[in-house]
Formats: sequence, C-alpha cells, structure tokens
Amino acid sequence: MSAGEARGRELLELVRELYPVCRSITGDGVRETLRLVARKLPLELHEVPSGTRVLDWTVPDEWNVRDAWIKNLAGERVVDFRHHNLHLVSYSEPVAPRRIARAELLEHLHSLPAHPDWIPYRTSYYQRSWGFCVSHKQLESLVDPEYEVCVDTRLAPGHLSYGEYFLPGERDDEILFSAHVCHPSLCDDNLSGIAVASAVAQALSARSARRFSYRFLFIPGTIGSITWLARNRERAARIRGGMTLVCLGDERGFTWKRTFAGRSAIDRAAELALARGPEPFEAIDFFPYGYDERQFNSPGFRIPIGSLMRGRHGRFDEYHTSADSLEFVRAPQLAQAVEAVLAIVDVLEGDERVRSLAPFGEPQLGRRGIYRAMGGESDPEALQLAMLWVLSLADGEHTLVDAAERSGLPFATIRSAATLLERHELIQVS
Amino acid sequence: MSAGEARGRELLELVRELYPVCRSITGDGVRETLRLVARKLPLELHEVPSGTRVLDWTVPDEWNVRDAWIKNLAGERVVDFRHHNLHLVSYSEPVAPRRIARAELLEHLHSLPAHPDWIPYRTSYYQRSWGFCVSHKQLESLVDPEYEVCVDTRLAPGHLSYGEYFLPGERDDEILFSAHVCHPSLCDDNLSGIAVASAVAQALSARSARRFSYRFLFIPGTIGSITWLARNRERAARIRGGMTLVCLGDERGFTWKRTFAGRSAIDRAAELALARGPEPFEAIDFFPYGYDERQFNSPGFRIPIGSLMRGRHGRFDEYHTSADSLEFVRAPQLAQAVEAVLAIVDVLEGDERVRSLAPFGEPQLGRRGIYRAMGGESDPEALQLAMLWVLSLADGEHTLVDAAERSGLPFATIRSAATLLERHELIQVS
Amino acid sequence: MSAGEARGRELLELVRELYPVCRSITGDGVRETLRLVARKLPLELHEVPSGTRVLDWTVPDEWNVRDAWIKNLAGERVVDFRHHNLHLVSYSEPVAPRRIARAELLEHLHSLPAHPDWIPYRTSYYQRSWGFCVSHKQLESLVDPEYEVCVDTRLAPGHLSYGEYFLPGERDDEILFSAHVCHPSLCDDNLSGIAVASAVAQALSARSARRFSYRFLFIPGTIGSITWLARNRERAARIRGGMTLVCLGDERGFTWKRTFAGRSAIDRAAELALARGPEPFEAIDFFPYGYDERQFNSPGFRIPIGSLMRGRHGRFDEYHTSADSLEFVRAPQLAQAVEAVLAIVDVLEGDERVRSLAPFGEPQLGRRGIYRAMGGESDPEALQLAMLWVLSLADGEHTLVDAAERSGLPFATIRSAATLLERHELIQVS
Repeated sequence: MSAGEARGRELLELVRELYPVCRSITGDGVRETLRLVARKLPLELHEVPSGTRVLDWTVPDEWNVRDAWIKNLAGERVVDFRHHNLHLVSYSEPVAPRRIARAELLEHLHSLPAHPDWIPYRTSYYQRSWGFCVSHKQLESLVDPEYEVCVDTRLAPGHLSYGEYFLPGERDDEILFSAHVCHPSLCDDNLSGIAVASAVAQALSARSARRFSYRFLFIPGTIGSITWLARNRERAARIRGGMTLVCLGDERGFTWKRTFAGRSAIDRAAELALARGPEPFEAIDFFPYGYDERQFNSPGFRIPIGSLMRGRHGRFDEYHTSADSLEFVRAPQLAQAVEAVLAIVDVLEGDERVRSLAPFGEPQLGRRGIYRAMGGESDPEALQLAMLWVLSLADGEHTLVDAAERSGLPFATIRSAATLLERHELIQVS
Repeated sequence: MSAGEARGRELLELVRELYPVCRSITGDGVRETLRLVARKLPLELHEVPSGTRVLDWTVPDEWNVRDAWIKNLAGERVVDFRHHNLHLVSYSEPVAPRRIARAELLEHLHSLPAHPDWIPYRTSYYQRSWGFCVSHKQLESLVDPEYEVCVDTRLAPGHLSYGEYFLPGERDDEILFSAHVCHPSLCDDNLSGIAVASAVAQALSARSARRFSYRFLFIPGTIGSITWLARNRERAARIRGGMTLVCLGDERGFTWKRTFAGRSAIDRAAELALARGPEPFEAIDFFPYGYDERQFNSPGFRIPIGSLMRGRHGRFDEYHTSADSLEFVRAPQLAQAVEAVLAIVDVLEGDERVRSLAPFGEPQLGRRGIYRAMGGESDPEALQLAMLWVLSLADGEHTLVDAAERSGLPFATIRSAATLLERHELIQVS
Repeated sequence: MSAGEARGRELLELVRELYPVCRSITGDGVRETLRLVARKLPLELHEVPSGTRVLDWTVPDEWNVRDAWIKNLAGERVVDFRHHNLHLVSYSEPVAPRRIARAELLEHLHSLPAHPDWIPYRTSYYQRSWGFCVSHKQLESLVDPEYEVCVDTRLAPGHLSYGEYFLPGERDDEILFSAHVCHPSLCDDNLSGIAVASAVAQALSARSARRFSYRFLFIPGTIGSITWLARNRERAARIRGGMTLVCLGDERGFTWKRTFAGRSAIDRAAELALARGPEPFEAIDFFPYGYDERQFNSPGFRIPIGSLMRGRHGRFDEYHTSADSLEFVRAPQLAQAVEAVLAIVDVLEGDERVRSLAPFGEPQLGRRGIYRAMGGESDPEALQLAMLWVLSLADGEHTLVDAAERSGLPFATIRSAATLLERHELIQVS
C-alpha cells in the first residue's frame, strides 16, 4: 500500500466516523466532531455564549436534538430522525407530540420530486419554525388523514463551538485554511473538507521549517467565520491568503474559486500548482455566495481567501441531499486533494523575489559545472532551462512565481534552479 | 394594441411624413423637417448665416431646389426631380435649360450597375458642380444623341438651420443625443434616427426626475455638429456622454460603436443594457468615419459620443440608395430602438458608487426580512444574489455598473437590490 | 531578372562562398568569414586577446584546425575533417596520431540515429575534450577492433575576432542587428543571417537619410556578444532596439521572437510590418535561450533585442546537422528576409508622435483638395481613411504606430497620410 493509499484510507476512515454525527451550527454534534478531529490535531476549542454580538450578527441559541418523528395512525414511525438525521430541518423548534392533519403536516415537509429517493437537507437557523425532510416517495406514501408529530429538540442559550489549530512559522504572516463543521450526515459537503484540512495540518506540522504560519479553522458556516473574525481582528490582518476546503471527495476535477482580488499570491500559487497537477483543473472568478470565503473577502476585510473544490457549490445533483453519502466520496480523491493543497503551500513557501549577482549578460554556468559541457544539441533540459529563466527574470522585481508562470515549467523545477543558483552565489533572494 | 405597438406606429407615421421632404445640409427641407419634429417637441430653432466661421469650416451658402429634369428629344421628362428627390445631386448648382450632347450628359450621371433598379444618393456640398442620380436601367435607356437639362436651384447666402431640445435634470452634466437631418428621401439613414430621438426626448421629458440633463440635436451631418460645437464650447464641456442615433429602423440587430475612449460610462452603460436586451447585439471599436460621433470625439473635444445603429454605416446594400425607402424600416424595430436607448439611460441614471455601512463580513439580511429564511437550497434567487453582489463590491470604489458587469445580472436587478439595501441602511450611495 | 531575384542570387552566392569555411568561436575561419563580408561592407575588425575578462566570462584560447581523421586498420580515412568540417567536434583538443580500441573511440563519437545520413554539429568550447561527429550509418560501419585517430588542432592563446559596421544617422540612438559567425558549414544557421545582415547594411547605407544610427555585429555566438557588451557599455545604452538575424533562408514563414519587454518599439514595428507582409507570420514571447538576444536582454542591460527567424531555434530536424546545407536555403527566401527587415526599419524610421493643429472637430480636408469632393459613397479610400485615423489620434500622445495598429491600415499608408497632413499644416510631428 503506497503512502497515498494509506492517507486516502485514513481520510475516508475519519469521514466514516464523522458521518453519523448530527451537526448543526451549534450543539453537541459540533463538539463531537471537534473531539474526533482533536484526536489527530491538538485543537484549541472555543465556546462563545449565545447572544454574543459578532459583527452584524448575534450568536444564536444552541440547538440539540433528542428525537424527532412522524407517526401514522397505526402508531408506526414513518419518518424517524434516528434513521437519518437529515429528516429533521436543522434548528427545528420543539413540538410536543400532537395530532396534526395531513394538509398541515405537508406544509412542514420538504422533498425533491426530481430525485424521489433522496432526502433533501434544509435549515432554518434564524427563523423559528420546524419541519421534516423526506424522500419524495415517502411523502407520496403519507396518505393517512392525520399524523402524530414530535420534535424533541432543545433550543436555548448555550454556546457556539469551534476549533482552531495554529502552526507557527518563521513569519507572523499567516496562511488560513477553513472547513465548515455544521452539516449533518453529508460527506462531500462538509466531511471531505474537515478530513482534508486535518491531514494538511498534520503534514505541515511534521515539517521542520515553515516560512509562513498556518491557521486551521473548523467552524460552523457563516456564523462561525463571522464569530472568528469578530474575535480576531488583529490576527485577521496578518492573513496573507488561504482557502476554504469543501467538496473534495467526489470524482470531479479541481476548481479554484479565486479570491475577490483575483490575482493575489494565493490565486497565483493555486493556479500554478493545480495547472501542473495530475487532474483536470479550472479556475473561476469570485462570486459572493458559496462558503466562508464570502466573509473573509467582504469589503471591510478583503482577506484573499479562495476556495478549493471538486464538486461545485450547488452545481451537482447530490449537493445537500442524502445522496451525498459515504458512497459519494473516495479515498484516492481525498488523498489527492491533500497533495494539491500541499503543492499550493509549496509554491507559497518557495516563492521569492530574485536579484542576479551577475546581471550583465548570462553568467558562465559551464565553468561552475552546472551546465552541460557539450554544445549544439537543441534545448537544454528542464533544470538548465529553469536556471536560464530565473537568471533572466532576476532583476529584483520578479519572483520565482513569475518565472514559473512565464516559463511554463513546474514551480518545483524553478525552485530547484533558484536554490542551485543561490548556492553558486549567482542570485540573491528576498 | 400594446404600448410598444402604438409607439412603433407613431414613429413610422413620423417617418412617413418626413419622407417626401427634400433635405440637404441647408435649406427649406431642413426647416420643414424641424417644423414636423417641433409638433412633438418644443424645439429651439437656430439659424446660422452662410459665411460664419465654425471651427475649421465655413457655413456654406443655402441651397434650395424648385425643379430639375432631363428631357429627351421628344420633350419628355425622362429624369424628374419631382418624381424622386434623389435624382438631383445635392447642392447641384443651377443650370438654365439647355441642350447637351449625350456624352457630356453621361459625365453628370451617377448610377449603380450592381443594383440596376436603385437610384444612388450623391452630394457635392463643397465643390460647385451639378449632376443627376438615376437607376442604371434609366441610364441605359438614354440613347438619344442629345438631351435637354435644367437644374432650377438657388445656391446663395442664407442660413444653416438646426433644432435643439434641452431637458434639465438635477445635475448640469449632460447626456447628448444627436440625429442628422440632412438626407433627402432616405428612411433608415436618417429618418429612423430623427424619429427615435424624438420619441426618446418625449419619454424622458415625461419623467418626474432626471439626474442628468439631456440635450437632443437635430442637425445636418458634419457641418451641423461642427457648427454646434463652435457655438457651444462651454456646454460641450459638460457633456458626460451620448450617442448619435442612426439607421435604427431596419431588421438588423443593434451595433454599439464605442467612443474613442472605448470604456467610458456611456460605453459601459450601452454594452450592459444592450447585451441584456431582447435582440442580438455587437459592440465595435471606434473608427473616425461614420456620423457626427467623429466631431465630438475629435482630439480637441474628446467628448465620449458613441453611435447606436442597426444597419451599419456603408455596410448594407440599401445604404444611400432609393432602396432605403419606406418599405425598408419597420415599426417594431423603431419602437424597440427607443426601448434600447431608454434602457441605456436607465443604467446611466441608476449607477452609483456604493459603500457598505456594515462592511465587516456580510450583514445579516435574514433578520431584516430581505433574505430567504430556509437554508440548504442551491443558489438564492436573482434579487438576493444581486444584494450579495452589491454588498461584496460596496467598498466605496466600485459602482452598480461594476456589480452588473461582474455578476452578469441585469442592471435593473442590481439597481433594485441597491435600493433595498439603501432602505435598510446597509449601504450608502454617492 | 527582378531586383528581388538579383538580390536573392547575390545573397545565395555569399552563402556559397562562406559555406566551406570552418568557423568556430575563434580562429582563422572567423577571420576568413569577416574578410568575405568585408568585400561588401567596410567592416571594422576587432581582435580581443585570449584571457581577457569579459563580464562573467573569459575570452578562451584560439582554436584552429589543420586536419583530423579516423583511419581503419587498412589505413583508410573513414572519417575525414577535410571531407566535412562538421566531422570534428568544435574546439577538440589535439590528439597525436594513435591507435585506439573501438570501444574507446565510440565514447568520442556523436551521431543521430533518427537521421542516419546526417552528421550532427557538436561543440565543446569550455571543457577540454575531443570528438568526432559522424552519420549514424558511418558509425555502424565502424566494425574494426581498433582505429587510428588524429586531431591536428591548435588550442592556444590568440584572439577572438569580430566585425562591426556602424552607419550614423541623425540621432545617436541606435538600432542593432547581430548575426553570429561561429557555426561551420551550416547554411540556415548561421550563413543566412550573415548574408541578410550584410544586405540590410548595404541597403541602409545607400539611403540618403536615416533618423536612427545603425550598428551591425558579426560576432561569435554568446562569447561574442558578451565581449562586445563588455567593451561597449556606453554604446549599448544608446541602443533603442534591434534583432538577431538567424535561420532566414529556409522555406518557413517568419517568426518574431519578442524582446524581454515584449511591447517595445522594435516589437511593435516588427509585428506591424510582418503582419502586413506577403508571408505567414507568427510572434512568440521571449525565452532566455536561443541566440544573442539572451545577452542583450539580460537583467543588467535589458536592451530590447528580438530575433527574426524562419526556422526556429532547435525546432526543425535539419537544425545543427549536415542537412542544413546549401540545398536547405533559397534565394527568394533570403531576398524576402531582407525586405522584411527593411519594412521593420521603415516603421521605426517613420514613426512619430502626432499633434493636430486643428484639433477641434475634423479639419475640412475637402477645401484643401485632399478629400474626395463627391459625398454619399460608402467608405473613403485607404489614404483618406488613413488621414482620418491620424487626425483622430493626433492628440500629442499617440503615434503613427498607434494609428497603424488601431486602424489595421498598412504603416506606409498611415505614414503617407501623415506626410500629406503635415504638408498642409494640419498636424505637427515630433
């Protein structure tokens, strides 16, 4: 079993453990999720009281579920939260067991006629109501004139929970990764992101040196990033770039959703790394909906956070349905996503501004033993080409990312060439 | 009959009334044209004496026609100005009735061998000469050895006439619309433009509020705009943009000819409005020939005047021939052209710079009742998307046009979103 | 015989005379080459002693060949420098006649299995070694167990030779053309460039007026331009642009390799001239390998030197092989290359910044007799269009190259229009 296969299995194992947990934007499901992640990473856990003002928002009451069901006239549970936690609209307010006419019940049911076997995922965080999500087949089988419903939830002052992991580097400048932890039994959206973020954090913590500091957030969507930003304005100002990690376990190729700025360092690093990767790749412009990149890129912050995805937000059928299940995500895709993120990190870590110490004409590489002795053949090989590119751009204004972009050579080759030239005192980096 | 149909009929009716008038760059045909337009709009009429220096030009003598004909040996009028005013080359100098050899006559005749039934349109404003335009079939039937010709015109000091209509708005900044009134019986080029300009002026005058002031010029081509510019340097400096209106009654889709600057406010407004319109649309770069946009965009003025057309200057067979007749223009096309201009005006009127009053993260729209309560579904609907786009760009540097361009949403939706956000004190516009 | 045919023949004749000479980066072959060119141009000859420090390099020892061969056991010369000078690896160190085992010999042999009839071209300038280049068929026929080899070369302190031709113009600003003179019997790479550079120099010297000064370098590749740059820093600072001339005799269309800057005056002139030329043309971005443009564009100099080629460096099979022979280059292609270079020069010479002296509206060209008198026809002809374009851009910021680029008209037409407008005191150039 290769290292990649081992990593893939480990990632999928974490997804399997997290799957049954009923997450929402607050509550014990989030805590249990953070506890499972914390076995891999020394997560710092935060609890923010309900009612706390965070930017334009207020931390809501905490929500927990004990049970929820719909019984038919025969007293059978025809819809049962214990069977699938998507059955209950997230943040449903309590409903004591009571009889309800079928017509009234239908107003509280959500289904997907186009996918009659799937249960949709719905939430009502900020408006008190209750509801059930059912497959359309289930809905159509509900023919009794009356049903009994029960929503045994608790919606009361408590806390919003999130986890944070910080990896210091040589510089205070930070790179941020954020995964949302608020979706119940949905695998691609959001368990794949949690798993990939954890593995990236583990891999970076194992490195002996890091130029940048790295921060990983495991937070409920929207209210989580808003809470973090409200409590960490100074730290936020040190973030140089980053990404939300979402929908990374399905079989689609990668999509990089650019930051608001569109050509920031993280965008260039991501596009360089992904364009050279083993999988198909597409970059798309920023748009102000999707995941927590919305909050970081807002006008007051303009922190360049992009988004790395496979399946795109709202653009695949299984999105926000019970079909986003354990069968929908794959170990190799998860492992490859970790590799892709690390390749982006490598560009950020390796980029430098270069200045030639022998800028007039080309330096004679041959006498330093770093250029082929025999002339006349066509093009030199990649490392030699990379040295020529780095030297050509080494005017103190261009960087190694510029060299990779202009040359079309892999960043790793450009980086190796720069290291070789630096060792021979032909360039200075900064 | 819909409002659009009614407007189309009214526009076509004006074209019909204007069609028989023999216009040129000066003379009673222009005055009659302005009189017919003035029944719809309180036009200010201007008369500028021949010999007046205007920029690099001089207002020419005034030209009027009583009659013009060619008779064969049998004394029959074989070419007759009274039959079609295109038969006489515009600004032909007087020729007292006289016999002329066929060979000499031919030197004064113009025809279109490629379209043997059509009469061409020719002018000789600034070089004294005379001539007749005939169908090629007519020309070929002229086999007599001699003919009698008569050009009963008057070419003498008089005036250049033009009409102007000014609609004040909140600001002194002006938007300019210009239509040329110098072509004789040609419908698309120039009667469609006159009709559309009149209808746009009527529609804007009926509005209760206008941010910009609007100016409409009904002027002879080239010498007219040069005369206006020479006499209105200070007003010219207040023009923020505008367009010439030409060839708007034929069945082609719209073309926006950009201003010299190419990306001025009027260009962006036009391209946004037309790209979202119901008809095919193309934008083309400025070139220094065509209509009066040439004069406004000249280096000394650089006033951003584009051109809205259907059939393009010199690019359709009927251009400047008798085939540009009443059958060539259509009521629905004229009405739709008015709608297109008003849509462009709406972008100009509605654009504003936006600054968020809650710039840190997204404001919580839900608690203000302007965002769907139920979460989990794919994309929000257009108005909600538009609010997110406006908020995302609301950094005090971007405008609503930026938001429409980046989002791909209709400007009207963006504008509605901004109004809603403003009402909720979430943004400030300026 | 047309002038073009005569020039083509003369160019090919020069290539024929130069073909047998055994050139390298130093030695009598270079001197003989410069002597043959000097019959056409009053070349200034330079000799730079071995050991001279030039930028990061040192002028190497001078290399000359008397003889070199491989004999079989029967004493027959099976590989013979006198038969083809490509047989000897350039800068091979002396080897006194001696017996050598076949296996050891093979380590010193170079061939091209993919082209078994062709002899490759190889060099070892900066690392002492020796070797022979043979066709792969020859190599396979070497089946004797032992061979006798002899490399009768002299590698000793001497000089590096190069030729220079300077044509003064009205300005000190220089345009540079550079051709390398270091390749032995290879026609496209480098004899075509030498021939074209000579003919361009002759043509420009015959002109009665030149705005720019022109410099022509006939130099060994890499070390030659490095030597010239080391000795001419002040002159180098006056170079406004230029090109290396290489591979211009084959049957491919032209390629313009852009300067490092990419949009300098020489790039724009080359792309304008070549895009309007009679042959297919492609422009490609700068890359830091190829010919001497590498040295001029290096960070310390950043002199905008592009490269004009037909066959691209390392991109055609015959490149650096014996198949780049007299049959590979053609008289018409050489003549057309001279025309192409002169067309580029014409753009550089003719470009000017223009300012209208009648910037408000269009000046009345008709009364000056430089515009058609008859109106109504579609587009004016090219010269009239060119006048309108020049006047439209004549704001003191735009140039005639801008006008050619924006209008799509040939630069020559734009230039003629500007001359006409200048004569009528409608524009000022600078």
